[in-house]
Amino acid sequence: MAEALRDCSRLCIHTITTKPWSLKECIEEYTRADVPGITVWRDVLQPLGADVAGQMLRDAGLEVVSLCRGGFFPAETEAARGEAIDDNRRAIDEAAAVGAPLVVLVSGAVPGMPLGEARVFIEEGIAAVLPHAEAAGVKLGIEPLHPMYADSRSAVNTMTQANDIVESLNHPLVGVTVDVYHLWWDPNLQREIRRAGGRIISFHVCDWLSPTRDMLNDRGLMGEGCIDIRQIRAWVEGAGFNGYIEVEIFSNELWCMNQRVYLERIKEAFLKSV
Amino acid sequence: MAEALRDCSRLCIHTITTKPWSLKECIEEYTRADVPGITVWRDVLQPLGADVAGQMLRDAGLEVVSLCRGGFFPAETEAARGEAIDDNRRAIDEAAAVGAPLVVLVSGAVPGMPLGEARVFIEEGIAAVLPHAEAAGVKLGIEPLHPMYADSRSAVNTMTQANDIVESLNHPLVGVTVDVYHLWWDPNLQREIRRAGGRIISFHVCDWLSPTRDMLNDRGLMGEGCIDIRQIRAWVEGAGFNGYIEVEIFSNELWCMNQRVYLERIKEAFLKSV
Repeated sequence: MAEALRDCSRLCIHTITTKPWSLKECIEEYTRADVPGITVWRDVLQPLGADVAGQMLRDAGLEVVSLCRGGFFPAETEAARGEAIDDNRRAIDEAAAVGAPLVVLVSGAVPGMPLGEARVFIEEGIAAVLPHAEAAGVKLGIEPLHPMYADSRSAVNTMTQANDIVESLNHPLVGVTVDVYHLWWDPNLQREIRRAGGRIISFHVCDWLSPTRDMLNDRGLMGEGCIDIRQIRAWVEGAGFNGYIEVEIFSNELWCMNQRVYLERIKEAFLKSV
Repeated sequence: MAEALRDCSRLCIHTITTKPWSLKECIEEYTRADVPGITVWRDVLQPLGADVAGQMLRDAGLEVVSLCRGGFFPAETEAARGEAIDDNRRAIDEAAAVGAPLVVLVSGAVPGMPLGEARVFIEEGIAAVLPHAEAAGVKLGIEPLHPMYADSRSAVNTMTQANDIVESLNHPLVGVTVDVYHLWWDPNLQREIRRAGGRIISFHVCDWLSPTRDMLNDRGLMGEGCIDIRQIRAWVEGAGFNGYIEVEIFSNELWCMNQRVYLERIKEAFLKSV
């Protein structure tokens, strides 16, 4: 079992976690609270553009851990799949512009499309954007999503499937993003984290609330739910990962709080329950 | 791929599917609509008692396919686990009284209890009630539940886990209940259905809606969602199962409909999409 974290030097927060804040506010507030890492969601780049945002992030001295998110490769028509690939190339450009070494991929799924077929499109889509990722020097993290999102968000629902795709592509820029929310229930999780080894390129935390009142936006702060986050961190670190630990929480309830107070609660939860 | 069903001779409906109806109304309405099978939920037995209910079901000539539900074995204290075992013995008695050859088990889970530990309690709980099941001649069906219920309803979330427990107990009265809603996303489903073979003792259908607006009570009528039900039926039948096909739908929306109209829609969906 891992020890509690002694400080917040590995803390990264996703801009979506403090959704009421603009990127400018996220930068100011995270800096003020001594949060060293930030993962930038594409929606907060829109008003400014990636170049201006990148300059702001560099000026603040924040470490940009990743860009969320690319993916969503499966689609019924070749034209739509081509558009998805183009959009992933733009995500890679934005990552490069803001200084993010990584684009996190939510693989995608289409209701009614067989999941095996969707996974073929996912692998083909990643392969298609790899030359662009190479040119930009940006990594791609395949994030398996919980099976409750298999209908419309991701046909990649376990570490086993993500590892299979990563091994099949076998490219130094392609790895796995481990998110405790999606994977905590999987009886093969420890084995598959070990299998992924050095291919784990990012690590997301939050908690699973009982009851969960909304399938999308009712995630809990670490320690409020049933996930043994520290155990999973021990496995991930045992596999060789020692990067930022990213707090990614979608919560209608927490977004209603005073976000400064919330930021302090995130730091406390990070030290107590991660 | 299986052919469409030609008639409703294998149709069974769960009383919970037409939740607004009492058991008496279910019996009258299913009979009137020529639905041959019924699965009885314990809540509808409460007002009458199982003996009176059993007589009503026999008088109507309905085939009682199963009793829902037992299980919920894991608990923090030995006393609470003992109470769960006692309650499962009562469920077996009720099944015998209403003429159900089978009790379906929702295994149970406790938020924060490691899932592996919960599965030990589940296996021990089933073993503890087996002598009672033998005496009553009632089978027990382990129903894996979707991973989104792993926190508080079931630590058994895949066919692989159910098969492991069934093989470990290795008892002729213990089998697996396959429900398409819980299992459709699993990449190992076909393999594990084949592995279960003759140990598949019941088969539940409904559909997964996109979007799903409620984690408990927003299941769809067959054909309204993204599950390839006919494919899964082909696998289950290929494994040797040829029993009733049970329509189990929890839906706040469908419970608001005129239930007679709904019953006709169930029959149409059964012939078109199962």
